[in-house]
Amino acid sequence: MKTVNAEIVAVGTELLLGQIANTNAQWISEQLALHGINVYYHGVVGDNLTRAKDIFDAAQNRSDVIIVTGGLGPTDDDLTREAFQLLSGIEIIEHNPSMKKIEAYFKRNNTVMTPNNRKQARVFHGASIIENNVGMAPGMIVEYQSKTWVFLPGVPREMKSMMNEGVLPYLSQLHGQTDVIKSYVLRFIGIGESKLEHELKELIDSQQNPTIAPLAQADGVVIRLTAKASSEERAIDLLEQTKSAILAKVGPYFIGMNDENIEHRIVSLLRDGQHKIASAESLTGGKFIEKMIAVPGASVVCNGAIVCYDESVKRDVLQVSSSTLDNFGTVSEACALEMSQNVAKLLGTSVGISFTGIAGPDSVEGKAVGTVYISIYIEGVDHFANKYEFIGDREAIRQRAVLKGYELLFHNLKT
Amino acid sequence: MKTVNAEIVAVGTELLLGQIANTNAQWISEQLALHGINVYYHGVVGDNLTRAKDIFDAAQNRSDVIIVTGGLGPTDDDLTREAFQLLSGIEIIEHNPSMKKIEAYFKRNNTVMTPNNRKQARVFHGASIIENNVGMAPGMIVEYQSKTWVFLPGVPREMKSMMNEGVLPYLSQLHGQTDVIKSYVLRFIGIGESKLEHELKELIDSQQNPTIAPLAQADGVVIRLTAKASSEERAIDLLEQTKSAILAKVGPYFIGMNDENIEHRIVSLLRDGQHKIASAESLTGGKFIEKMIAVPGASVVCNGAIVCYDESVKRDVLQVSSSTLDNFGTVSEACALEMSQNVAKLLGTSVGISFTGIAGPDSVEGKAVGTVYISIYIEGVDHFANKYEFIGDREAIRQRAVLKGYELLFHNLKT
Repeated sequence: MKTVNAEIVAVGTELLLGQIANTNAQWISEQLALHGINVYYHGVVGDNLTRAKDIFDAAQNRSDVIIVTGGLGPTDDDLTREAFQLLSGIEIIEHNPSMKKIEAYFKRNNTVMTPNNRKQARVFHGASIIENNVGMAPGMIVEYQSKTWVFLPGVPREMKSMMNEGVLPYLSQLHGQTDVIKSYVLRFIGIGESKLEHELKELIDSQQNPTIAPLAQADGVVIRLTAKASSEERAIDLLEQTKSAILAKVGPYFIGMNDENIEHRIVSLLRDGQHKIASAESLTGGKFIEKMIAVPGASVVCNGAIVCYDESVKRDVLQVSSSTLDNFGTVSEACALEMSQNVAKLLGTSVGISFTGIAGPDSVEGKAVGTVYISIYIEGVDHFANKYEFIGDREAIRQRAVLKGYELLFHNLKT
Repeated sequence: MKTVNAEIVAVGTELLLGQIANTNAQWISEQLALHGINVYYHGVVGDNLTRAKDIFDAAQNRSDVIIVTGGLGPTDDDLTREAFQLLSGIEIIEHNPSMKKIEAYFKRNNTVMTPNNRKQARVFHGASIIENNVGMAPGMIVEYQSKTWVFLPGVPREMKSMMNEGVLPYLSQLHGQTDVIKSYVLRFIGIGESKLEHELKELIDSQQNPTIAPLAQADGVVIRLTAKASSEERAIDLLEQTKSAILAKVGPYFIGMNDENIEHRIVSLLRDGQHKIASAESLTGGKFIEKMIAVPGASVVCNGAIVCYDESVKRDVLQVSSSTLDNFGTVSEACALEMSQNVAKLLGTSVGISFTGIAGPDSVEGKAVGTVYISIYIEGVDHFANKYEFIGDREAIRQRAVLKGYELLFHNLKT
């Protein structure tokens, strides 16, 4: 395998003003590492022709692959194309399919296309074009004096889609990578990073291939295993062995692999159990159901939700009894229990989950900010409510409540 | 005031592996902008002596101030000092007060100090030392061949504390900064970046102070105005004049300033109109209401929602008529219209909004992925439904639908 050294250059004054962080460089670096490509430099330069060209010059001299993000948009300060043309002298032409797509977009939305939008369809003569399936400006791969230049939009969603679909396959092929690098991401819930690392310490310390890297994330802890081997089969063998060793120690907290996050897993568990679910959400305001409906195929298991932010909705729509509301208030075990059962009955599901509590900034009914009741109803099987006291600001409390709801469902559905 | 051009260099292989994003550069850039210092480049290089020295060489040639983060720690791969010594030849000596502090730290924690910790007390001869009040390695400011070099640890907490206490005061004094820098962020919805820039082209081209920088964001377009003046009052004057000139051209799309995003604005508009709102959400799955409930104080205007993902919930809970569902299907103008009105009636609000459509990946009822109907009901005032064809993946379609819903509400509530 040839050693390939890459460099990532971001073009955009907003980065130099500190308006956003260069998360594109981070993400691309991660992907290149997984493909066995070394990244030796990141650079950021503003929307300035001379300075962008100077940075490109340095990159051409020292790197094999240069990935440039940003500066492909419609406005005058988007000048990545012009800067690279200064360096390479390659002609810029209009890419017909992209131009048609842009025109169709404006037509479909009954909007007048301002002339500067034509700029987004301009590409280097001879470039390989990477279609933009989630936005307008296409990406480009240009081979110039034995260096590979990749140009991508700065919008993370567009950039990622093009990297996955066009750039990474191209680079893997071009550089005849023969060692295979394969990763597993193992996802866990209900266990902290330090505890997980403590349980796995011996394994982590003694092992080189695959490497074992735990990482705390907003929705749990993940462990990334990365194996290098002469074939994909051999890499998978190594990964499976290590996975088994890990699950022997912390199996009960394991949710799933790679993209199978907790929402995906709950959708699978519901489907396997021939369940349907509905939620009744007060402080979480639909966050629980929204996450679930983001999963393709959620429609098979998910009927919907009642977001009962106002007390009147708890009373009139969800039919929580007046005696409960009057005696215990909306933030109570009794109210949570009725909410989970009633939403299941109303929406015709076998599983109901409810959230009621205080997200702040102000306390309600004399209860402290962070107080949350979560109740789960599984028809003919279980019906309970737990009380939690979450810390953090409004958003953190709402997020923690939703995550805890998924965790509770996980433990109650998987048995 | 002298113009000062700065560059920020981060040293650390973890950045090139994508393990973390370079948020230090973002934060430092923001601070320098506020102090009237231009940032023209960010760079990241790994823990490699030759490559770090090369990056330092380029910085010495092109920038007045170079701020280096990272590579001052105790381990062998921390080599920022050595790389700058290669460039400058300046002697490295042990800083006694820092050494004493490090020894005291280990003593206090009853830990044996490994010898490599001495490295953290090593500083350039003649450097101004910036004490580290939250960690071990001190920071340094070195004047070398009329350029100012600043060396700081990579740990954000330590870096920020030293920037605030030592570096920013030093740079302000050195460069005789007396001017005040102030920014406005103006938020717009319903106008693309290209159209906005087209409308404001003359203004943007003709104007230096404040600078006018449009930027597309996920939820609309923002314009950042940055003014430099001898006093805060004068800066605000300049900002207000430019804001007025901008709003004279694109006022109808203006949402608000700074943190006042579209959800905040809709909450204000509903409150001002003494309205309450409820949503009926199919493909958006609660995303609309969830965003609104994230706004503190939303409880005054927001009763809740019915997430009617399954047809049965549209029929049985939302009471969409069978004739509509049978004749037109769930993804139809007629269904959207009934949904918006019925949810308002059921949840006792004066405003209802509904979303029904196909987020994909599969088409439904023979309608294409991306087809979305949005309906708004304002009691006694208006009741309509629009059809859209959004592009993108499942998540993009759902996000675009929600944003369009907010945009429609904005145009219908603000009059």
